[in-house]
Amino acid sequence: MKLHGTMRINQAGHLEIGGCDAMELVRQFGTPLYVMDETLLRDNCRAYVESFQKHYPDAEVIYASKVFSTMAMCRLVAEEDMGLDVVSGGELYTALASGFPAGRIYFHGNNKTPEELEMALEARVGRYVVDNYGELELLNELARQRRTKAKILIRVSPGIDAHTHHYIKTGMIDSKFGLAIANGQAMMGVEKALGMKNLEIKGIHCHIGSQIFDLDSFKEAAATMMAFVRDIRAQTGFVCEELNLGGGLGIHYTEDDAPRPAGDLVAVIAAAVRAAAADYGLPLPKIIVEPGRSIVGEAGVTLYTVGSVKDIPGIRKYVAVDGGMTDNPRPALYQAKYEAALANKMNLPAEETVSIAGKCCESGDMLIWDLELPPAVTGDILAVTSTGAYNYAMASNYNRNPRPAVVFASGGKAELVVRRESYEDLVRNDVVPERMQSKVACLA
Amino acid sequence: MKLHGTMRINQAGHLEIGGCDAMELVRQFGTPLYVMDETLLRDNCRAYVESFQKHYPDAEVIYASKVFSTMAMCRLVAEEDMGLDVVSGGELYTALASGFPAGRIYFHGNNKTPEELEMALEARVGRYVVDNYGELELLNELARQRRTKAKILIRVSPGIDAHTHHYIKTGMIDSKFGLAIANGQAMMGVEKALGMKNLEIKGIHCHIGSQIFDLDSFKEAAATMMAFVRDIRAQTGFVCEELNLGGGLGIHYTEDDAPRPAGDLVAVIAAAVRAAAADYGLPLPKIIVEPGRSIVGEAGVTLYTVGSVKDIPGIRKYVAVDGGMTDNPRPALYQAKYEAALANKMNLPAEETVSIAGKCCESGDMLIWDLELPPAVTGDILAVTSTGAYNYAMASNYNRNPRPAVVFASGGKAELVVRRESYEDLVRNDVVPERMQSKVACLA
Repeated sequence: MKLHGTMRINQAGHLEIGGCDAMELVRQFGTPLYVMDETLLRDNCRAYVESFQKHYPDAEVIYASKVFSTMAMCRLVAEEDMGLDVVSGGELYTALASGFPAGRIYFHGNNKTPEELEMALEARVGRYVVDNYGELELLNELARQRRTKAKILIRVSPGIDAHTHHYIKTGMIDSKFGLAIANGQAMMGVEKALGMKNLEIKGIHCHIGSQIFDLDSFKEAAATMMAFVRDIRAQTGFVCEELNLGGGLGIHYTEDDAPRPAGDLVAVIAAAVRAAAADYGLPLPKIIVEPGRSIVGEAGVTLYTVGSVKDIPGIRKYVAVDGGMTDNPRPALYQAKYEAALANKMNLPAEETVSIAGKCCESGDMLIWDLELPPAVTGDILAVTSTGAYNYAMASNYNRNPRPAVVFASGGKAELVVRRESYEDLVRNDVVPERMQSKVACLA
Repeated sequence: MKLHGTMRINQAGHLEIGGCDAMELVRQFGTPLYVMDETLLRDNCRAYVESFQKHYPDAEVIYASKVFSTMAMCRLVAEEDMGLDVVSGGELYTALASGFPAGRIYFHGNNKTPEELEMALEARVGRYVVDNYGELELLNELARQRRTKAKILIRVSPGIDAHTHHYIKTGMIDSKFGLAIANGQAMMGVEKALGMKNLEIKGIHCHIGSQIFDLDSFKEAAATMMAFVRDIRAQTGFVCEELNLGGGLGIHYTEDDAPRPAGDLVAVIAAAVRAAAADYGLPLPKIIVEPGRSIVGEAGVTLYTVGSVKDIPGIRKYVAVDGGMTDNPRPALYQAKYEAALANKMNLPAEETVSIAGKCCESGDMLIWDLELPPAVTGDILAVTSTGAYNYAMASNYNRNPRPAVVFASGGKAELVVRRESYEDLVRNDVVPERMQSKVACLA
């Protein structure tokens, strides 16, 4: 198991995150527990911000909050002088509730509802990344009613094939996202926007996918987008001021992954945009990127307590933990792979191959197949790494399992940023029609 | 689209569920909305209960609440004189909060935590379906501390291959669930249980999978289990009083599915158990079955509002709705297929092939590919059928989308059974460490 960020093995042979002994975290907060390495979170933010300062100062790094959206995370992002990408009314609400400056919020989504756009206009968010013609018209009309102008980017589909999982590949022409350059729909979107009185188009946006290791995909996307900027100028006279190239940088889940540093991505993008601008005689646009997974993914560790251990001789040893697909649906959704270790036995050699089962009543609730571990017994603490992205965000109450707590750990101290759900939380919105109340009172 | 239960097309050409016009439900409760056809729910319960009365009176039908666990549903199940299967502390809490009689509760799960078992002992649930050796020891010890005896069934793995999706196939020997008959572990589990002072073994349990159409699988399971009952008697002298054959009957999602009536399943099981009992000279055990999907699946309809409609000429027309993988993760998880229609245009002919996109920022958030519909425009209401099982239960707040409301509709009246989540609900458990509060106050 790779130790990310501040993770280390302490003298007790325990895993330590942010200077906190994992066993102490478990004692204090219980399991399952999401632990975020705050130092690594901030280092990852700064890697982007500082690389842009070096390579291309007219840039903005905005955090894709869908990856892990909580009030504390929004505040951390604000402290790091970054912008924020929200994709729903709920993410916008979270950001606003945290005091995040609305002007630094970018509002994304393929199907923003009228209510969500109203909410964003009311809050005066900085940019709307408009996905389609219908949204152009809707936003223009809503802005007109408020006698304001909405600043927009048009989401375009550059047709780049980023070699990644089918589900998270978003830059192709047959996509629910954006307007394709290849078939002229993106150009028509720009022209429509230019003709709308209550929209102010600032530029274009693309997102080619997620968990990408091949920087050539980003280079190609930047070049394709700059060629489109040139074409827009040629056809309409409009010169894009802002070029948003999305996110998608891959991280380390297992040793099969070969992530590239954020600085390399920034350098590649900056060079591609500069070269194209020079070639086409275009002014340098402001560059915006939207990292999410590469900010929080490796900073997250999930701690579980080992429960039942079932050895089926000659077949498999199942080690069950007190969480599963409810707190990490990615193995079931994407066949995602993870590394893990026993946080209380970090110095013991791996002696057996086991499979980590979740506690949901579903055969598919398996977190890791064929993991090398020291002998695991009931009560051990399993640490699964790289769970910062799309784990808490996608967590469910399947089987009515409460969602875990989240803590930020740094400098030997851990602070709660999301309280563990209670059983009361699970039934908070349940209503029993009155006619059923009396009947069951008799039954009970 | 097949019309299930009370669904019909009314004079306005609208979909009607439980006598309620879908458009009126939308006006009253908003979208996305889960609508449960209460009459069909009860009819499905009664199909099991009445078939057993006819074919095998010494039986109990227990609802697998993981499929759709809410307080109102637990009450409905109690009213229908059925038992309840819970798989976690959360489901147990929901049942108890609804006033469900604890003695009719079966507690399942491959990895019940000590806290969950304590809670169940405190509540005096009727049966523990014990999954493994560790749980036998743990439950025996916890029951000893309380000076009580826990009544148990042993979960065994009969090794039946029910031809269904890999994720939901649970009867094979390489499974996180139960103890296999084939390798002797199940027999050893029974022997261990018989030797434990604070456990009272009542019988055995199996569950061969989900969404099964082939009744021969159930017949084979019943026969295999009865042969094991015989072997247990031969080896230990213990005669099982209770035989729990689990659930798994398939339902209609699309025309590719050929579901069998509950009555047929009951007849097949009853005959198989009777035949085996006669063959082996065994007394007839009490039969328990645990239907879930076949009670609620076809009774659920999800109503969505159509938002953006994106035509990519020659490629695909995307129709986006205001929900998606957050309220129905099954297409993303299992490539599950669904039928749908426009609830406000039920009498219009299908004229085009579209694909239904969700609103999540994820390419994989597609609900239905290649659906025949009348021309769909923004504001239409899309009804997706057979969403009663594993939709609300597996719903998440991904993208911080609030989970929809749930209503029971019957006799022209709809009653709220789960309130729509609010934005406040989403941040209810968020905490911002004090040190971050002051800093962001300055930034805002």
